[in-house]
Amino acid sequence: MAEKAAKVRLCVPDDLSPEARIEPAREQAHYLFNVMRLAAGDPLLVFNGRDGEWLAEVSEATRKGGVLTCRERVRAQTRPRDLVLLFAPVKKARTDFIVEKACELGCAALRPVFTKRTNAERLRPDRLRAHMVEAAEQCGFLTVPELLEAERLDRVLDDWDPARRILFCDERRDAPPAAQALAAHRPADGGEAGPWAVLIGPEGGFDEAESARLRGLAQVEAVSLGPRVLRADTAAVAALTIWQAVLGDWTAEGEAMAEGTRT
Amino acid sequence: MAEKAAKVRLCVPDDLSPEARIEPAREQAHYLFNVMRLAAGDPLLVFNGRDGEWLAEVSEATRKGGVLTCRERVRAQTRPRDLVLLFAPVKKARTDFIVEKACELGCAALRPVFTKRTNAERLRPDRLRAHMVEAAEQCGFLTVPELLEAERLDRVLDDWDPARRILFCDERRDAPPAAQALAAHRPADGGEAGPWAVLIGPEGGFDEAESARLRGLAQVEAVSLGPRVLRADTAAVAALTIWQAVLGDWTAEGEAMAEGTRT
Repeated sequence: MAEKAAKVRLCVPDDLSPEARIEPAREQAHYLFNVMRLAAGDPLLVFNGRDGEWLAEVSEATRKGGVLTCRERVRAQTRPRDLVLLFAPVKKARTDFIVEKACELGCAALRPVFTKRTNAERLRPDRLRAHMVEAAEQCGFLTVPELLEAERLDRVLDDWDPARRILFCDERRDAPPAAQALAAHRPADGGEAGPWAVLIGPEGGFDEAESARLRGLAQVEAVSLGPRVLRADTAAVAALTIWQAVLGDWTAEGEAMAEGTRT
Repeated sequence: MAEKAAKVRLCVPDDLSPEARIEPAREQAHYLFNVMRLAAGDPLLVFNGRDGEWLAEVSEATRKGGVLTCRERVRAQTRPRDLVLLFAPVKKARTDFIVEKACELGCAALRPVFTKRTNAERLRPDRLRAHMVEAAEQCGFLTVPELLEAERLDRVLDDWDPARRILFCDERRDAPPAAQALAAHRPADGGEAGPWAVLIGPEGGFDEAESARLRGLAQVEAVSLGPRVLRADTAAVAALTIWQAVLGDWTAEGEAMAEGTRT
């Protein structure tokens, strides 16, 4: 008889090791035992961002809680690429979307930045974090990206690490295509690209002073995302996609590294 | 005194020529005169997918309707790249999203396809078309993509034009990265790529028989979109982005062609 396949993948705070016992938090227990109706003996996958991905099993299940037991590691832990998404918060549904997609697209961290034209509803970091956990569980990411504190763009730039490059999605017509500009940054030794950030402005774009400051910074690569005006959420997905495809873990070498050891 | 900038861009069915008179449909009139509060003398941009983009002016505005007059052509008509998105409909919000993004990303046509695991709510072509018009207006596209009739994937493949290649986003680990696979299809003469389609499956992917049939077709290019499992909407944006960046109008040459003549 074929072994049951794990239908659930769960991010847990616990350390993971053979026979480790995990008591899921109340909401997770509700999801596991009431929504997904897992029962004693059912398999699932767990990860914590530190110890890789483990096959676990439901040892006890009641309507109110239960216990999981770690069986064996199925993927070794890997680090995500050192890619930060700086994004100006937009409307709620589109901000949720950006946050979800940044996880699927393998960002290590996200930081909301307030630009001059940012006109956002109030940010709820706890809600955004819950979206990020769900996205990481769903897409097979071994890490939940870090959600950095929201900050004004000018202050973020004041304290910028000069070693971290910024992909600035510029609306000027004369910026080079993103893929072409990034290809010039491929390490000659075929190794991993250095630290980067992708910066996405609000609907309505950056103001003149912001754009001028960005273009003047040595670590900024101002690029074009094609001839149409993309919404902020589209621009975020497009820019992260191109980064991963050209410099990140979507290249053949990168993918082999990101995948971890499947045992 | 600086000339007022056009704040509205409208898709109209009318032919566009100097002094052409346009009577906006009721919903458009409501949008122009009640929502955006345009008044006589205000400029706006109009396009119809045939005659390029025109600067027009409000000649009459009442609460119930009004008249626009074409002044001068500001961009010549261009054809979009011959890129079709075949997508399995998913949940309503994510299907809306796919349709909106396919316009921003410059598709010529969209076709919903029903695969074995497609589990969609009822499709409303009129609603999808309205989203597409709005997206084209917003992103500066000179064309509203065509919405082709929804069809079963196996029937679509039965009648497939052998000259049109299919980018098949495969979930197998051994498919080559999308950007690398597409780069091999760049025309040697630097001209425009031939006809293509991007095929995006439902959440849950293609079934084994579908995948096997697709991989066996000569015109299919099976590719990977990185090491994480992307949702259908993310996969659609990512695949269209890579297509445009490698073969389409996001390349330096492509962009110059797509932009049209700005006079």
